Amino acid sequence: MASSSGRRLNINNINPHVRAAKYAVRGELAVKSEEYRASLQTGSSDLPFTQVISANIGNPQQLDQKPLTFFRQVLSILENPALLEKGDVLVNDLGYKPDVLERAERLLKQVGSVGAYSASNGVPAIRQSIADFLERRDGFPANQADIYLSAGASSGVNTLLHIICADEKSGILVPIPQYPLYTASLSVLNATCVPYLLDESKNWGTDLGTIKAAYEKAKAEGTDVRAIVIINPGNPTGASLSEEDIRAVIEFARQERLVILADEVYQTNVFIGEFISFKRMLRQMQKEKPGVYDNVELASLHSVSKGMVGECGHRGGYFELVNFDPAVQAEIYKFVSIMLCAPVIGQCLVELMVNPPKPGEPSYELYKKEYDAIFYGLKERATALHKAFEQMEGVECGTPQGSMYLFPTIKLPPKAAEAAAAEGRTPDEFYCMRLLEATGICVVPGSGFGQKQGTLHFRTTFLAPGTEWVGSMVKFHKEFMDKYR
Amino acid sequence: MASSSGRRLNINNINPHVRAAKYAVRGELAVKSEEYRASLQTGSSDLPFTQVISANIGNPQQLDQKPLTFFRQVLSILENPALLEKGDVLVNDLGYKPDVLERAERLLKQVGSVGAYSASNGVPAIRQSIADFLERRDGFPANQADIYLSAGASSGVNTLLHIICADEKSGILVPIPQYPLYTASLSVLNATCVPYLLDESKNWGTDLGTIKAAYEKAKAEGTDVRAIVIINPGNPTGASLSEEDIRAVIEFARQERLVILADEVYQTNVFIGEFISFKRMLRQMQKEKPGVYDNVELASLHSVSKGMVGECGHRGGYFELVNFDPAVQAEIYKFVSIMLCAPVIGQCLVELMVNPPKPGEPSYELYKKEYDAIFYGLKERATALHKAFEQMEGVECGTPQGSMYLFPTIKLPPKAAEAAAAEGRTPDEFYCMRLLEATGICVVPGSGFGQKQGTLHFRTTFLAPGTEWVGSMVKFHKEFMDKYR
Repeated sequence: MASSSGRRLNINNINPHVRAAKYAVRGELAVKSEEYRASLQTGSSDLPFTQVISANIGNPQQLDQKPLTFFRQVLSILENPALLEKGDVLVNDLGYKPDVLERAERLLKQVGSVGAYSASNGVPAIRQSIADFLERRDGFPANQADIYLSAGASSGVNTLLHIICADEKSGILVPIPQYPLYTASLSVLNATCVPYLLDESKNWGTDLGTIKAAYEKAKAEGTDVRAIVIINPGNPTGASLSEEDIRAVIEFARQERLVILADEVYQTNVFIGEFISFKRMLRQMQKEKPGVYDNVELASLHSVSKGMVGECGHRGGYFELVNFDPAVQAEIYKFVSIMLCAPVIGQCLVELMVNPPKPGEPSYELYKKEYDAIFYGLKERATALHKAFEQMEGVECGTPQGSMYLFPTIKLPPKAAEAAAAEGRTPDEFYCMRLLEATGICVVPGSGFGQKQGTLHFRTTFLAPGTEWVGSMVKFHKEFMDKYR
Repeated sequence: MASSSGRRLNINNINPHVRAAKYAVRGELAVKSEEYRASLQTGSSDLPFTQVISANIGNPQQLDQKPLTFFRQVLSILENPALLEKGDVLVNDLGYKPDVLERAERLLKQVGSVGAYSASNGVPAIRQSIADFLERRDGFPANQADIYLSAGASSGVNTLLHIICADEKSGILVPIPQYPLYTASLSVLNATCVPYLLDESKNWGTDLGTIKAAYEKAKAEGTDVRAIVIINPGNPTGASLSEEDIRAVIEFARQERLVILADEVYQTNVFIGEFISFKRMLRQMQKEKPGVYDNVELASLHSVSKGMVGECGHRGGYFELVNFDPAVQAEIYKFVSIMLCAPVIGQCLVELMVNPPKPGEPSYELYKKEYDAIFYGLKERATALHKAFEQMEGVECGTPQGSMYLFPTIKLPPKAAEAAAAEGRTPDEFYCMRLLEATGICVVPGSGFGQKQGTLHFRTTFLAPGTEWVGSMVKFHKEFMDKYR
């Protein structure tokens, strides 16, 4: 009895669409940075830096950001409801305010055990709380039946793309640069990504002429373009869209019958102006011209991972469907049922996010203080980083507007491009790899998000504490430019 | 400006593979049972029962099962690490044992914040703890690099099927009856389900002749059969496989070069004999005949949702890969990266499950007491339900062996089949619908899992507390049989 030859699965016969997918945020650079981190922890490294700065991923609590106290106190009770029997100890000895206990008690009543599956689309009372939040935010009604809890926004995007894409001809307009979840998911689904460039000269806003041209080109090639993705505030760009841009996209979606996928997970990370939701603008336009926009389908996504909440590890999020066909919603319900439900403690965190302590409530003061400190801390670091970029030769970057990222252009000397080619890398990859090796700072090359032909960028978060690392980036850049000049 | 006609998405143009997927566990009966529950809560219903018994889904904590105290105490600290600063209060006033604090402290050191993303495949130290558990369980080494944390086992199955299925010709052998996750996921992937019948006469064991016949038939039809799914202990059948059956499957997988997907989420729910893992048998066979089985690829899945843990809502799980090609594993890593990571608090719960308090440790006694009470409670209710089935005319059911389910055969009179046809239902659906309407007991018809042509079954959990509902099922059955005799 001899062994049949070889394993069944190898790189050449597994799902080619998975193989084709690219996801640079956790790619080679990220893996290498983790190796460096492990090496530094052993204490025996001879690396030219003493710590790794993970500026490659929007993971606030891995860095400086502390969880909001009210949220975590409530969650601690949800995990151990027996604590409620010792309410006096919680209040007198552990500093829990009465509204923490009340909220936990209410959620437990609504949820049952956080260890039980919820309804496939989420706990009904949590969906209602989200609907209430959306009404307050937008000034238009929201229906809990149109809300679907998800394991972070990524899982929501996965669901929506699964429903929308019928075959390989199905096309989705995706902004470039983009968060690579979109292109990776479309690869796996074997559907068509229809890229449209954002306008760097307008602080990475949407340009309708560019979108139309991309749409027409794809249509001429036989692509059945079905939806348009908008990431607002932008990832990786940090852009924050104007009302005018949003209206233009909605009008275009109406004309061409495109579903709008509005990735709005950075809605509280806005430094200039205010966040305007697609839902609010769509309802506003429906009100202004009754009947005209009633068939414009919008799915809007949000998450506990970003903003001042920053609870990525809890995998909480939701999406709201607007103007969708009920029969299509029933298929979405069935699809999410196959994975049973979103993590229930994450669902509870969504509830806390959309319904935080109000002025006058016992936990409000601390909540507000913590929230503001995070907000202004992010803004301050964004500004410091932006100032550093202004000093760096060949680096250009618009004023920080929102999200957690800056996405500067870098102009590198021809010699650097040659050295990169010799290593089989793109120049931006080459630059980011040298940066990591020299300073321990991990950023993501622009090619991981897509960028206009002939341009180079990188994405950095501004989450890492301190400013020392910004200084070492400036120093590295000067040496790099001098070396390859 | 007129509205463009109609919405973009309708039931006829969305992804046909999602539309084709069936997932009865949360289908029409489940939805109706929730409507009844809501109606009962208003207090104004005229239903002929006073409560809904959700015996359709293995959701222990929705019913009687209480979370294990040690686990939830640790989780409460992970959610609010500030509690560790008040260790004396936790111990003296809240009854937390010192090992609860120690475990929480250690996990926090390993994990960082549970609000941060972990590595895509899970927290390294948690993977190591799982590897240690597998070594203890099986007596063979396990490598943390081969372990992938997942959002419950369902998400792990989704990952593995995505990798294995390359196109619509890719076939997976799936037991019938089966948990519909498999057929639903294969529908969505547009790959081929190759059903093989389990042998009801052998207490739902695997029959190699039947498997071979299904395999050969599919091969002859041009299907590229790549893997075989085994659910052990069985869902919905409750079967527990013998060493002989497991060896036969491994040998067959070797001969035909099939990947084995071993769904072992009910591994602690075994009432007769002991659980034998596929990993242990594969390593044993590799040891007995060196070199012969080294290319047999096995993926084994486990979860915190079932067993005495019963923490479905936390969406925790993992899979271990054995004998996989490293290049294929790298693609799996990339695939799971797109969804970032499994819920981190769920990962911690996996760690607690595989590494519970040991004899002599402060929390052991209570843990053991709670664990045993759940185990024997399940066994007792399974026996009571089985006894009830023995009294019911035309109902046959093997002795409960494991998992959380019984899957009796029901033989219904021809008149019942006629009445079902008149409603456009299969006879088992008809029976289950009448049962729900008459008693509030929700079970799942056998057709939701697949069953041998000409046979009828239903699946019921034995999680619901009390025995009153069992009595009302017996009463309903008698009336049903009398009516349609």
